[in-house]
Amino acid sequence: MKNFIGIDIPEYIEGYGKVIPFQGAYENPVIKKKNGVRESAVGPNENKVLESIDEALDKANIKDGMTVSFHHHLRNGDYVLNMVMERIAARGIKDITVAASSIFPVHAPLVEYIKEGIVTQIVASYISGPVAKAISEGLLNKPAIMQTHGGRGRAIESGDIHIDVAFVAAPAADNYGNINGLYGKSACGALGYAIADCQYADKVIAITDNIVPYPNCPIEISQIYVDYIVPVESIGDPEGIVSGTTKITKDPVGLKIAKMAAGVMKASGLIKNGMSFQTGAGGISLAVAQELKDIMIKEDIKGSFASGGITGYIVDMFREGLFEYLFDVQCFDLKAVESYSQTHKHQRMSASMYGNPHNKGAVVNNLDIVILGATEIDTNFNVNVTTGSDGAIMGGSGGHSDTAAGAKLTIIVSNLMKARLPLIKDKITTVNTPGETIDVLVTERGIAVNPRRQDLIEKLKATNLPVMSIEELKSISEKLTGKPKDIETEDNIVAVVEYRDGTVIDVIRKTK
Amino acid sequence: MKNFIGIDIPEYIEGYGKVIPFQGAYENPVIKKKNGVRESAVGPNENKVLESIDEALDKANIKDGMTVSFHHHLRNGDYVLNMVMERIAARGIKDITVAASSIFPVHAPLVEYIKEGIVTQIVASYISGPVAKAISEGLLNKPAIMQTHGGRGRAIESGDIHIDVAFVAAPAADNYGNINGLYGKSACGALGYAIADCQYADKVIAITDNIVPYPNCPIEISQIYVDYIVPVESIGDPEGIVSGTTKITKDPVGLKIAKMAAGVMKASGLIKNGMSFQTGAGGISLAVAQELKDIMIKEDIKGSFASGGITGYIVDMFREGLFEYLFDVQCFDLKAVESYSQTHKHQRMSASMYGNPHNKGAVVNNLDIVILGATEIDTNFNVNVTTGSDGAIMGGSGGHSDTAAGAKLTIIVSNLMKARLPLIKDKITTVNTPGETIDVLVTERGIAVNPRRQDLIEKLKATNLPVMSIEELKSISEKLTGKPKDIETEDNIVAVVEYRDGTVIDVIRKTK
Repeated sequence: MKNFIGIDIPEYIEGYGKVIPFQGAYENPVIKKKNGVRESAVGPNENKVLESIDEALDKANIKDGMTVSFHHHLRNGDYVLNMVMERIAARGIKDITVAASSIFPVHAPLVEYIKEGIVTQIVASYISGPVAKAISEGLLNKPAIMQTHGGRGRAIESGDIHIDVAFVAAPAADNYGNINGLYGKSACGALGYAIADCQYADKVIAITDNIVPYPNCPIEISQIYVDYIVPVESIGDPEGIVSGTTKITKDPVGLKIAKMAAGVMKASGLIKNGMSFQTGAGGISLAVAQELKDIMIKEDIKGSFASGGITGYIVDMFREGLFEYLFDVQCFDLKAVESYSQTHKHQRMSASMYGNPHNKGAVVNNLDIVILGATEIDTNFNVNVTTGSDGAIMGGSGGHSDTAAGAKLTIIVSNLMKARLPLIKDKITTVNTPGETIDVLVTERGIAVNPRRQDLIEKLKATNLPVMSIEELKSISEKLTGKPKDIETEDNIVAVVEYRDGTVIDVIRKTK
Repeated sequence: MKNFIGIDIPEYIEGYGKVIPFQGAYENPVIKKKNGVRESAVGPNENKVLESIDEALDKANIKDGMTVSFHHHLRNGDYVLNMVMERIAARGIKDITVAASSIFPVHAPLVEYIKEGIVTQIVASYISGPVAKAISEGLLNKPAIMQTHGGRGRAIESGDIHIDVAFVAAPAADNYGNINGLYGKSACGALGYAIADCQYADKVIAITDNIVPYPNCPIEISQIYVDYIVPVESIGDPEGIVSGTTKITKDPVGLKIAKMAAGVMKASGLIKNGMSFQTGAGGISLAVAQELKDIMIKEDIKGSFASGGITGYIVDMFREGLFEYLFDVQCFDLKAVESYSQTHKHQRMSASMYGNPHNKGAVVNNLDIVILGATEIDTNFNVNVTTGSDGAIMGGSGGHSDTAAGAKLTIIVSNLMKARLPLIKDKITTVNTPGETIDVLVTERGIAVNPRRQDLIEKLKATNLPVMSIEELKSISEKLTGKPKDIETEDNIVAVVEYRDGTVIDVIRKTK
């Protein structure tokens, strides 16, 4: 069958199950009840602190076929996933599903567990490095499931993913399980991606390298959700915890794109008092924030909130009074961690509050402007940030689809060519974000507006910005790069790309 | 059948259902899954702000037989319950269950709705005033259900109470439903009793007299739980919102009792660095806090946390560094509201986090000492704070049973006689808190220790405190008051008293 954006999807995928095809960004064909999780009564005088991960695995009765979950606030510095999986593997347990909010190169040991059948399924919102390569090569027994950040919250809440045991990397925990990410040698800030795991898993185990006196305030994850606490020497490498991508681009082309994007924002009329804004942590996206900052200062504009993974650049804008509040699902650097610990106006949010389409209104719904990147985009404005032009997995939506669906103005900023390959194609390798949620593409050679946004096209006519059709932009780039060859893949489906509502927007096939 | 404390309970109660008898404070015979509530997808550009309560009732599809819930942070100043019930009554709707965390004299209009069959059941943790009288006289169609604060959280989470529509009195709300109790003319502080309602009701409607710009931070109740917001002129009377009971007693007898209680605390060895403490807002209880304060200052002791409904007296101890943290489920006065808004060390908690026995560990489990009152106590240390000596409802457990079960040392402070009636009886009118969770009774004429606590009896021998058996204390008081007559009641059960785990610890019968 073909889904709403014309992609052929099987009705049933072995190892995944019955497919609900994507039916449009705002259709939500299946809204479920929330999952009713088991209560576990912990009375007075019960001790929650255990000696070792093995003791925790015993207490959680870990066994074949279970789903274990992890979150990625320690990013490429995370030790917890590997530590836990090493002990699970040592028990000879098989057929584990790893539901991790993201997987990074540091998680390379998973490849061996995949080969051995210890891990047979992976569910994540972003996968890069050796695990992504292994999945793309067809080594994983069942297709991986790629979700959005909000979609993961939805899936856990609805029971689409039932987590047997959630593992929380806890930079600070007390002996009763109150957790935050603010203090200690592995401080990482907000823990938004771990919230649904803790609320909906049958068992929750905190792994910490920093036991603090009870009660550990502010409490981001409450004692009422945590079964056990396991103290370890170290939960992560501080060098890897702080992302290396959060620097404004110095490339003149990137800066030009940022200036053009600022022009679009200005023309849209959305830069005004009370505005809200989100941008990614990529170099061009941060340059757009810098442009916005200059405009806001010059025109004395006070925004309402900025959201997302929060970087020091956004904290600077917040501190200068350009935004009154921050909604933070993960802190990208230590300046963000510090800010979050200092004021309640820098507010944490769970992944569900951030982007779940099936709660009573996510934060993305109140976004005016979001700036996003793209690996590929087609002439219907469908976007790929999941696979590279070789067809292999190298990322994932994360909050891309969530913010695009929510924001009043979604702008993709990108160079027209990437490593001599064209950005714009007739058919892109993978679609994770549907074109109906993308408003504008800004490249160094021109700006294309989604024809759905005639209002915006009108507004841009009054500027001297180089607006053209996306087909024209494609022609320009093809003159430079030539028409790219279609990627050849095998038939085997190695990953299923779920839209935020749980429908299937695309599948990823084995690379040749 | 007889339950664990020897009270005759029917196996089935008409209008309540099958009875699970109380089986001991830590038995938890029935631990359920959490209730899986309906998700409601709210997308971008949907408006949540409605014109009137009537519009909200239309949207929530209110109908016969539904359960509506309220919380009592506005106490005897609350306008919201009456405003909503007036509109429900005006529709000719029948057979409504009112699940209110507490009911006060201000809610007198409910009596008329009870008579008319509009309200046929009431579930609450505390009921005083005309509604209590009406229930005691048998006017309510089904037996009322009296719960503890933690038990109410448990019942809502487990689905024992399924709330169709929850109404939240919101001192500050934005147009997307982020709520706190900190700001505006009806500021009342922490909203701990409303949290389970918002998380587990099918529909959540905020009634507010203070719409603030989005986002309303700090967020105590999140937009993801709130369906609609209804602005009204006023949600409450500030005079009634701040409780009148939070004054230290000036009665010399009360002060003597407080001093003796302090002596017991000191002898117990629990007054030490890292200690935790809770006391009620009654005059003697607050005098005990004053005594504790003097000891802590004198002996340079730094406590960990104080919890409960927080009063200005406890805030003073917190500000002086005697407690490092406060866990707050409701603020009793404006000093508490102010403190809660100023620092994350004054931490909110939900009723479930406070006292639910079926989560992974409530705050009460970490309490060292709690000071509680009593209307009556029997020689097995079972306590009544629910009915008066005429057998009529005039209160309820609230957090009484929760804290008694959790704390290492539970002390009842009370005058030996109340309005010429004896405190200690062979058989008390109603049992809400089982004697196995009470350690010590302190009266002006002597101190009785529960024989289960031989360790404490040994420690008190080393002091010059007047320790005696509870039977001896009873004799002393009966010499003064005479032996009271048993209260005569009809057979009809007008209320079922649930222990925190949902078992039935007692029933209340119609007054003669």
